[in-house]
Amino acid sequence: MKIVVVGGSAAGPKAAAKARRMDQHAEITILQEGPDLSMASCGYPYFVGGFFDDRNQLLSTPTGVIRDPKYYLKAKGINAMTRTRVTAIDRKRHVVSCHDLDEEQDFELAYDKLVLATGASPVVPPLPGSDLEGISTLQSMRDADYLRQIADEKKIDRAVVIGGGLIGVETCEALHLAGIQITLVEMMSQLLLFLDWEMAKVLENHIRSKAAIVITENPVAEFLGENGKLTGVKLRNGIELPCELAVVAVGVRPNSKLAEDAGLKIGERGGIEVDTFMQTSDPDIYAAGDCVEIPHLITGEKVHAPFGDLANLEGRVVGQNVVTGNKVEFPGTIQTGVCKVFDYGAGATGLSESRAREAGYNVVSVITAAPDKPHFMGGELLLLKMVANADTGRLLGLQAVGPGDVSKRIAQAAMAIHGKLTVADLVNADLPYAPPFSPAIDNFIMTAHVLENKMLGRMSGLSASEVRERLQKGGQPYLLDVRGADEFERMRLGVGENLIPLGALRNRLNELPADKDQEIICYCKISLRGYEAASVLEANGWTNVKVMEGGLMAWPFPREK
Amino acid sequence: MKIVVVGGSAAGPKAAAKARRMDQHAEITILQEGPDLSMASCGYPYFVGGFFDDRNQLLSTPTGVIRDPKYYLKAKGINAMTRTRVTAIDRKRHVVSCHDLDEEQDFELAYDKLVLATGASPVVPPLPGSDLEGISTLQSMRDADYLRQIADEKKIDRAVVIGGGLIGVETCEALHLAGIQITLVEMMSQLLLFLDWEMAKVLENHIRSKAAIVITENPVAEFLGENGKLTGVKLRNGIELPCELAVVAVGVRPNSKLAEDAGLKIGERGGIEVDTFMQTSDPDIYAAGDCVEIPHLITGEKVHAPFGDLANLEGRVVGQNVVTGNKVEFPGTIQTGVCKVFDYGAGATGLSESRAREAGYNVVSVITAAPDKPHFMGGELLLLKMVANADTGRLLGLQAVGPGDVSKRIAQAAMAIHGKLTVADLVNADLPYAPPFSPAIDNFIMTAHVLENKMLGRMSGLSASEVRERLQKGGQPYLLDVRGADEFERMRLGVGENLIPLGALRNRLNELPADKDQEIICYCKISLRGYEAASVLEANGWTNVKVMEGGLMAWPFPREK
Repeated sequence: MKIVVVGGSAAGPKAAAKARRMDQHAEITILQEGPDLSMASCGYPYFVGGFFDDRNQLLSTPTGVIRDPKYYLKAKGINAMTRTRVTAIDRKRHVVSCHDLDEEQDFELAYDKLVLATGASPVVPPLPGSDLEGISTLQSMRDADYLRQIADEKKIDRAVVIGGGLIGVETCEALHLAGIQITLVEMMSQLLLFLDWEMAKVLENHIRSKAAIVITENPVAEFLGENGKLTGVKLRNGIELPCELAVVAVGVRPNSKLAEDAGLKIGERGGIEVDTFMQTSDPDIYAAGDCVEIPHLITGEKVHAPFGDLANLEGRVVGQNVVTGNKVEFPGTIQTGVCKVFDYGAGATGLSESRAREAGYNVVSVITAAPDKPHFMGGELLLLKMVANADTGRLLGLQAVGPGDVSKRIAQAAMAIHGKLTVADLVNADLPYAPPFSPAIDNFIMTAHVLENKMLGRMSGLSASEVRERLQKGGQPYLLDVRGADEFERMRLGVGENLIPLGALRNRLNELPADKDQEIICYCKISLRGYEAASVLEANGWTNVKVMEGGLMAWPFPREK
Repeated sequence: MKIVVVGGSAAGPKAAAKARRMDQHAEITILQEGPDLSMASCGYPYFVGGFFDDRNQLLSTPTGVIRDPKYYLKAKGINAMTRTRVTAIDRKRHVVSCHDLDEEQDFELAYDKLVLATGASPVVPPLPGSDLEGISTLQSMRDADYLRQIADEKKIDRAVVIGGGLIGVETCEALHLAGIQITLVEMMSQLLLFLDWEMAKVLENHIRSKAAIVITENPVAEFLGENGKLTGVKLRNGIELPCELAVVAVGVRPNSKLAEDAGLKIGERGGIEVDTFMQTSDPDIYAAGDCVEIPHLITGEKVHAPFGDLANLEGRVVGQNVVTGNKVEFPGTIQTGVCKVFDYGAGATGLSESRAREAGYNVVSVITAAPDKPHFMGGELLLLKMVANADTGRLLGLQAVGPGDVSKRIAQAAMAIHGKLTVADLVNADLPYAPPFSPAIDNFIMTAHVLENKMLGRMSGLSASEVRERLQKGGQPYLLDVRGADEFERMRLGVGENLIPLGALRNRLNELPADKDQEIICYCKISLRGYEAASVLEANGWTNVKVMEGGLMAWPFPREK
């Protein structure tokens, strides 16, 4: 039994290792074009940012052994060949054509089962000047070494990061930590497309507050240079951003050419088509990792989900199936992602509201803001946005942004989506509570409570954007801030709102609009008191009472104070 | 509509507040025997331990407003009466008899709907000397104030904490932080009964390493004193522990006497019996919080689950049902709990292995050890124990102990249990991955992988206890440590094990027992390499190969090094 694995980053080595555990006698070979194996590529930004200094930590086991060909041979009984490019697959002869990049020799290797784990490559837009020195991606050990050297040398003052996705925002932090002035440029209207606009805006504000300039809705038109070196980036609107370094992180594209040339089916997103066994259109060829398309577990449509954890899980499935035949399935993704952005985390699982609407769902959603622990334990703010199917109540997605513990709530929500739980299930979920870890009612559960209130018609919510839109369109909603006078003094919108503290509201109802059908929008810092105020007003005959979701903490626009 | 709530801690105020939001016109009264309302009682140990200094933080909203009767009246329109004892319920007349403890006057209050949220009281065993000065519980603001004063005064050198449950271990840390020498005494054979013995033992070792003495399987026989003051605690085996302070935390008992006297049904565990609407045997009386019994969602049996988060969730359900009639249900608990113990967290959800066996399940379980983040991001060790139904594969429980992020994994598992997920579902779950937050394959998922391997017969595991039992019984298993020689030099069992590093194993098979049926137990630091070694041996004809689960990191007994 000869198993050949093309690709030595995440999915490939995992498939090889799992196949080995399943079959100690198979002949297993990994073919890797680059010099390294099993690179912890998601760790590149943290190496560049100086979270640790030894690059080899990205290449080694926890006990410090480098995962090189010798390690693979001795510890795993796997023949790993680096600097080896696979140039073609001959499916009839069951042979791959290889090119040894060091010896500059071609050779062939026979397989019984072939695993394609060819990964994805960064998209570099074909703009004028894109061959200038000083333009990099952050997709390889080589990129990481290059950027870390720049960070260490401290010769560069200004960099432009192009692309506001996961790698873009992580790179932004990494280079900022090296004392480099950063401008982050994104062609779309927001960063991190797995978030809805308002959530992304909160994150954008945080990045700005950390001294990086953020420019959205403005694509790069041209790289500017002198003597072959980058001197600046020119945007389509004409703005020129002087810089000595540009990091391009506008996305990745599946490396599916080898598969395509061999006549394997390619999906609509450009990834290799596989079934749930991770088998390609050729039964002797499997594929896993960033080069494939997999089903989205909610919408059912095929998506490209280049995440390191999924690559490993897919590789594990392939490693079993190549040995046992098709026994185990990889069901798909809910596109769960998370990143650290300075002092904030940002993450999402399932569908955002905009994606859910695109997919045709009847959507209900809510934004909440609350500390992630009791105030006496130093809780940090966490903004959550929960999205559910309004018809069935099923949880479709959760987004989280803030200095609080984002990853825990996204992990909870991911499990809830896998369990097909509804909002009604979530409202009474039994989560671990102790003051060092969470509030008595965890943010995730509390958000389900508010969403349930909306779904049952007990609360009518408006997002900050919707409130702002009303104001910009010249609407005349009665804005009711129900915080204390001291809080109002320290922070406020300053758009003509009215202050009546919740504790005084029942006695000051006469100050409210006489027209009981006038739209009244209640809020406080996080809109818990805002919600209570709305209940009071509705019980006293006002018919058009709204709550601004998440209160001032979810207002991503400028405030008077 | 008159709603009367007996009890002002967690469930009571939540029920009252929710009822108010549902009905702005009802007359709502909270009757509270103590002087305070809405105490964050789970925060007491952190106040005692000096995590914060202002006791009023336990009694106030995040914006700093004390939740006193004035606050309840103004902000919530709720009449809260403190220092008011309810002495009887006249169900025919729909009236409660009250006693004003300040004015020493009796009065009656009529209700349409009555909510019992009378909580639970600490059990203080009726031992000789239990009335001595210097014996306390940690169940009230008064207790918290008393212990904080002791901590601040620094006059006391030695304290004994009696009971190794959640409050016991938290108290242990709190008093240790005040510089007091602690002895923790538990009558059972382990701390934290929601953990299986081995997991609890790891935690016990940690507490010992932090300079607290831990004594298990030894109940307290007597409190010793002079001049009315505590001078020591005498254990049943005769040991005397000199101390000036004893904190009793051996458990709580539901306060159900008021209900019982009124003829309401009481459950087998001593809690007030309620249905899923949280309605007692009297349709006009509801109950919630630590005074009730609720269904365990896995076993179906009624349990007493005195957790702060559940009290709030139950109160929310009651608040709705008293206003709308029985519309919403509280399904029950999976007894999720977590606590901080010095630098470790410890938590559990669902059933432990021992509880699952008691409940009659055919159980399969596994213990794993792994860092909770990539090593280059400073991952901390996390021990997980996963318990599943061997017949159906359904996840029954998860336990977690270690310096790593316990609460996140327990929260994930809790959601997975709510979603009725199986181990097969978990192995490909799509969780949020980024190096600052988790390994590429999260500890929870990795544990599911190992358990799946066991369930499919790919791995035969032994717990550290099982291995030790074999050694103690004079068994002669061949113990194979497959770490590197340098690792072996730094740390090892020293019980006659054999060292063959995994990388050398394939070439040194001749050193292994000639008898292919000899029991061989493989392990490494965390038993990942141990598992690989076992696969190699099995493929080479050995028939009785085991893996010691969690490796050296899960070995809770003394080692040579």
